[in-house]
Amino acid sequence: MSTQITLAEYLFYRLRDAGVLAVHGVPGDYNLTLLDHVVPCGLEWVGNCNELNAGYAADGYARIKGIGALITTFGVGELSAINAIAGAYAEMAPVVHIVGTPDRKLQSSGTRLHHSLCRGTPRDFELFAEMYEKVTVAQENLINLSTAPMQIDRAIRECVVQSRPVYIRVPMDMVNEMVPRTRFNRSMMVPDTLCYGAATLSPHPNEPLFEEEIADQIVHRIRKAKQPLILVDAGTSRFGMSEQVHELAKVTGFPTATTPFGKGIIDEGLPNFHGIYAPIGKTNYVSYVEACDLIINIGPMHSNVNTYYFTTVPKEDISIVFEQNHVMIGSCAQNLKPKSLLQQVLDNLARDGITPFAPYPDLPRIALNPKIFDIDRDSELTQDVFWSRISTFFRSGDIILTETGTSSVGGRDMVLPKGTTLINSSVWLSIGYTLAAAQGAVLAQRHLATSTSSPSGRTILFEGDGSFQMTVQEISTIIRKKLDVIIFIVNNNGYTIERLIHGPEQHYNDVAAWKYLDSPSYFGANCDTEYPIFTASAKTWRELDSITNQTTFKDGRGLRIVELTMEYKDCTQNMKDLLGMYTKEE
Amino acid sequence: MSTQITLAEYLFYRLRDAGVLAVHGVPGDYNLTLLDHVVPCGLEWVGNCNELNAGYAADGYARIKGIGALITTFGVGELSAINAIAGAYAEMAPVVHIVGTPDRKLQSSGTRLHHSLCRGTPRDFELFAEMYEKVTVAQENLINLSTAPMQIDRAIRECVVQSRPVYIRVPMDMVNEMVPRTRFNRSMMVPDTLCYGAATLSPHPNEPLFEEEIADQIVHRIRKAKQPLILVDAGTSRFGMSEQVHELAKVTGFPTATTPFGKGIIDEGLPNFHGIYAPIGKTNYVSYVEACDLIINIGPMHSNVNTYYFTTVPKEDISIVFEQNHVMIGSCAQNLKPKSLLQQVLDNLARDGITPFAPYPDLPRIALNPKIFDIDRDSELTQDVFWSRISTFFRSGDIILTETGTSSVGGRDMVLPKGTTLINSSVWLSIGYTLAAAQGAVLAQRHLATSTSSPSGRTILFEGDGSFQMTVQEISTIIRKKLDVIIFIVNNNGYTIERLIHGPEQHYNDVAAWKYLDSPSYFGANCDTEYPIFTASAKTWRELDSITNQTTFKDGRGLRIVELTMEYKDCTQNMKDLLGMYTKEE
Repeated sequence: MSTQITLAEYLFYRLRDAGVLAVHGVPGDYNLTLLDHVVPCGLEWVGNCNELNAGYAADGYARIKGIGALITTFGVGELSAINAIAGAYAEMAPVVHIVGTPDRKLQSSGTRLHHSLCRGTPRDFELFAEMYEKVTVAQENLINLSTAPMQIDRAIRECVVQSRPVYIRVPMDMVNEMVPRTRFNRSMMVPDTLCYGAATLSPHPNEPLFEEEIADQIVHRIRKAKQPLILVDAGTSRFGMSEQVHELAKVTGFPTATTPFGKGIIDEGLPNFHGIYAPIGKTNYVSYVEACDLIINIGPMHSNVNTYYFTTVPKEDISIVFEQNHVMIGSCAQNLKPKSLLQQVLDNLARDGITPFAPYPDLPRIALNPKIFDIDRDSELTQDVFWSRISTFFRSGDIILTETGTSSVGGRDMVLPKGTTLINSSVWLSIGYTLAAAQGAVLAQRHLATSTSSPSGRTILFEGDGSFQMTVQEISTIIRKKLDVIIFIVNNNGYTIERLIHGPEQHYNDVAAWKYLDSPSYFGANCDTEYPIFTASAKTWRELDSITNQTTFKDGRGLRIVELTMEYKDCTQNMKDLLGMYTKEE
Repeated sequence: MSTQITLAEYLFYRLRDAGVLAVHGVPGDYNLTLLDHVVPCGLEWVGNCNELNAGYAADGYARIKGIGALITTFGVGELSAINAIAGAYAEMAPVVHIVGTPDRKLQSSGTRLHHSLCRGTPRDFELFAEMYEKVTVAQENLINLSTAPMQIDRAIRECVVQSRPVYIRVPMDMVNEMVPRTRFNRSMMVPDTLCYGAATLSPHPNEPLFEEEIADQIVHRIRKAKQPLILVDAGTSRFGMSEQVHELAKVTGFPTATTPFGKGIIDEGLPNFHGIYAPIGKTNYVSYVEACDLIINIGPMHSNVNTYYFTTVPKEDISIVFEQNHVMIGSCAQNLKPKSLLQQVLDNLARDGITPFAPYPDLPRIALNPKIFDIDRDSELTQDVFWSRISTFFRSGDIILTETGTSSVGGRDMVLPKGTTLINSSVWLSIGYTLAAAQGAVLAQRHLATSTSSPSGRTILFEGDGSFQMTVQEISTIIRKKLDVIIFIVNNNGYTIERLIHGPEQHYNDVAAWKYLDSPSYFGANCDTEYPIFTASAKTWRELDSITNQTTFKDGRGLRIVELTMEYKDCTQNMKDLLGMYTKEE
C-alpha cells in the first residue's frame, strides 16, 4: 500500500469518514481534476443542473445525513451557490463547500483569468472568499501542502461541531499533490495519533464537576416546578439532542410543545405533547405558558417567523435555555455543552427517580378534527382542511418537506406519526429551496437505509407553483439519480403568500401556468419498470383520495407528482391569524 | 399637480429618465410595496422565475438599452442574484440593482427577521451589502429622506458613467415617504437646477486645451505610422465610442481587428476589417502585428479568454490605449476621457485631411469559405462548418447571443452583417447566462424599436444543452412576455467544453437528456396566432436548411426553437487550437 495519497483523495476520504456519501455540485473549469477523485474515493457524484440548486440539495442531504458536501468552481459557481450556503448558515445545516480555484501562481500573480473580475490583482482571488467569511464558520485555503490535511480536518470538524457550513478552496495545482496516507477512522470520533491533523467530530467535553453542579440545579428546578413547559426548537436536532429531549419529555411528563421550526423533532403521539405553541389557532395556551414557573427551552432558533413575531419567546427569569455552547439559567450563562449536560440531568433523574407531573393541566391536543373527513368529497380542495387531512397519508420513516409559503404554514396543521422528519424553513425562507433539498434528502435517506439495512421511509414534498418554478430543473436530477420522491404541487396560480401579505390582485404576484404534470416527460424520464412515473391532478377530495389510496402511489417507487388545484388566495385559518399578527406588529 | 411624490416614484421616474423601460426581478416580502409603483410609473414589470435569471436578464437588457434594472428582496433574493451582478461588473453592463429591505427601525434594532442570518444585531442587515460593495461601483442605502433623491441620482449616474452595476437599498418604510416633485429631464443630460441632486449621465468633460494637445500627439502618430493596427475590444461599446471607432477605421484605412469580446462592434464588411486577431486559425497575422509601429487599442478588457492567454495583448511601447478614464500613450497615462478625445482626433483629421493608408498589407480576410456550402447535405452537422455556415442566416439589426462554451468559441467563426450586435461572455463566462440575457435583450430591442419606430431585428440565441439547463425556466418568461426569440439548442449531450478541457469521458460532464422541443408546451405557450410557436430538430445540413429557409421561421414571430444534434466531443478547429494553447500555457 502506497504511503502517499493525493490531497484530493485525502479530502474525499475525510468527507466519507465524516459521513458524506454523496457530493453535490456542478463541474467547472477549475474543479474538473478534483472531480476525477470523487467516485474513486467511494463517493457518489450528483451533478445538479445549477449551483444554487446543488447548494440547496447539499443542505437537504446534510439535514438528514448529518453532513453534506458541495463542489463548485471559482467565481461563477460559488457565487451562484452563496444564497444556499447563507441559508445553511442561518438554519444550521452542516455543508462543506469546496471550491476549485486556479493554480496558486496564477492567483498570486493576479492573472486576469475568466470567472474573476479581471482587475489584475491577487485580490481578485480573495473577493469571493471574503463574501463566504460572512456565511460560513470556517474558511480554509489549501495553498500549503504541509498544513492542508490539518486544514481539511479542521474545517470538517467545525462544520459538524458547529452544525454550520464551511468553505474550502482547493487550487488546481494542489489537487494531485501527495500527502502522507493516514489511517482513516470511519467515525472520526477517535483521534488517531498516526494521523496528523486527525480530529474528532464531537464538541470538547464539559468539565465533569461543573456539569454535575449545574445538572443538580436543573434537576432541583424540575422537581419543584408547579407549572412547567418543555419547548422544543430546531436547535435540538442540530445539537444532536433529540433523543435526550424525548427522554426528558417522557420522564418528567411535563407539557411539551415545539416551535414551527422544531415541529417533527418530538414524537407527536406522546400524551404530553401539545403541538406548536402559538398565540393563535387551536394550540393557543398562552395563559398557561404565561403563568409557568419553569420553561425548559431546547435549541431556540429565533426569527420573527419561528416565534409568531417574538410573542412565544419564553420569559428569561423562569427559563432554562439549552443553547449550542452554553446553557442559560435565568439570566446566568453557564459554559456547558447542552447535550452532555442534559444527559447528566436525565441520569440524575433516573438515579433518584421522579414522579410524573401531576395534576396534569387541561391543555389542547393536536388530534385531527373528525370533521375534516366529513366534508362533501366532491367539494374543492381547501387549505384549511388539506394540511390536516393529508396527515393520514404519512408513516413513520417519512421525510416531509414543506416549502416556504402556504405549504410551510399549512404544514403546522399536520399531525405527524412518530419517526417522521419534517423539513421546513423558518429563518431563511428562500423559496425554491425544498425541491432541490428534497433531492438531497431522499438521497441521504437512501444512503442511511443502505447503511443500516432498515426499510426506508418515503420523501414527500409539498410546494407551491411559484416556488417550484425557481428550481424546477432539479426534477431532472431526481430522475437521473432514480430517486423515489412524491411531490404535491400546490397550484394556486402565483405567489399566494405574497398576495396575502400585500397586493392580492397585483400582477407581480402572478406566475405563468406551466404543464406541471409533464415534468417527468420533459426532464427525460422514460417511465420504465426500473423507475416508474406517476402523475395525477386533484381538484376535489374525491380525486385526492383516489390518488393517495392507490398502491402504486402510496407504496410505489419512482417519481410521483400530484398537482393540487387550490384557490389563488386560499390559506389556512392559522395563516390568516398569523398574517394578522404580522401586519399588526410591523 | 402635487408638489410631492413618493420616494418609490422618484426612483422609478429617474430610472425611466435614464432609459430604463422595464424592471426585472422577483417579488419578495420586503419589496412588494415598492413593486406597486413600477407599472404606474410607466415601467414594464418583468417577473422572472428566479433572481439569478432576473439579474442575467437585466444585464442583457442593459447591454442593448444602455441601462437595466433589477429588483430583489433582502437576503435570499439579492444573494441569489449576486453572481449575475458580479458578471455585470466584470463585463461592464450597467445594471441598477434595487433591494427592498425591512423597516429602518427593525434593522437598527437588530430584529431577528426572516431572510437575515438572525444573529440579532444590526450587522445582520449590513452583511449582504458588504458583499455587494465588491461587485458594484456605488452603493446607496436610502435611510434618510433628505438625501435619498440625491443618492438615487448619484447611483444612476455612476451606473451609466462607469457602465457597471450599482446597488440601492430601499427600506420598506421609506417607499411611500414623500419627496419634492422635481422636473424630470428625459435624458438626464441637462442638469436641472430645480432638482436637488439632479445629475447628468455624461462623464465630466475633458480640459479642452489638454485634450487638444494629446489629440495632436495622436494625430501625429497616426500620420507617421508605417505599420498600424486598430484593435477594437468590448470597452468600445461600453464607453459609447463605437461610432467614433468606425469613423477612425474608415478615415485612416488602417487594418482593423477585434478581440473575441469586441466582435460585432465594428462593421465586418469594411474593406480594412480582418476579423478577430488571433495567434491561431485563419485570422492569424502575428508577424504583421509584431512588427507594427502603432496599435490603437480601444477599450481593452483583458482576460485569458479574450486575449488567447495574453498572446494578443499589444506591446506597450507602440500602443495608444483608450481606457475608460484615461489614455495610455506608450507608458504615459493621460487623464482624458476617451470618447471625447477620439472625437477630437477625428475632428483634427477631418480638418487637415488624411490620405488612406497605403500600400495596404496582405492580411487575411474573414470571408466565408465557399467549401462550407459544398458539403454533402445529408451529412451530420459539425461545429467547424456550422458556425460559419449559419452566418448567412443573419441580417442587419439582429442581436446574436452565443453562450459560453462551444457556442461562444464557435461564434468567433461567424461573419456578421453590418448592424448586428453580438453578445458573448469573454470575462465572466457564467454558463446559463445567455438564455436569461436573451429575454432581457429582446425586450430592450422591442423597446428601442418602439421608441425609434424602426423595424426591429431578430434576437437569436445559440446555447448548448448543459448551459440551457441552468436557467431553463426563463423560457417561461419569454413566452409570458410574448417575446420573439429564435433559440438554437446545441444538443451535444453534456458539457462539451469541459470534456475538451478535461475528462472527455467522465460522467460528471454528462447532462440528462431532456425533451428540449417540448419547452414551449411545458412552459405554458398556447401557440395561438398572437404568439406562434415553431419547433424543429436538425441532425443534417439538409434538415437545417429546410428550417432556416422557412418564412415562418426566419421572418416569423413568437418562440422558435431548433434542436441541433452534434457529436459530444465535436468542436471547431479554432477551439482545438485554443485549447492547445490554454493547456500549454497553464
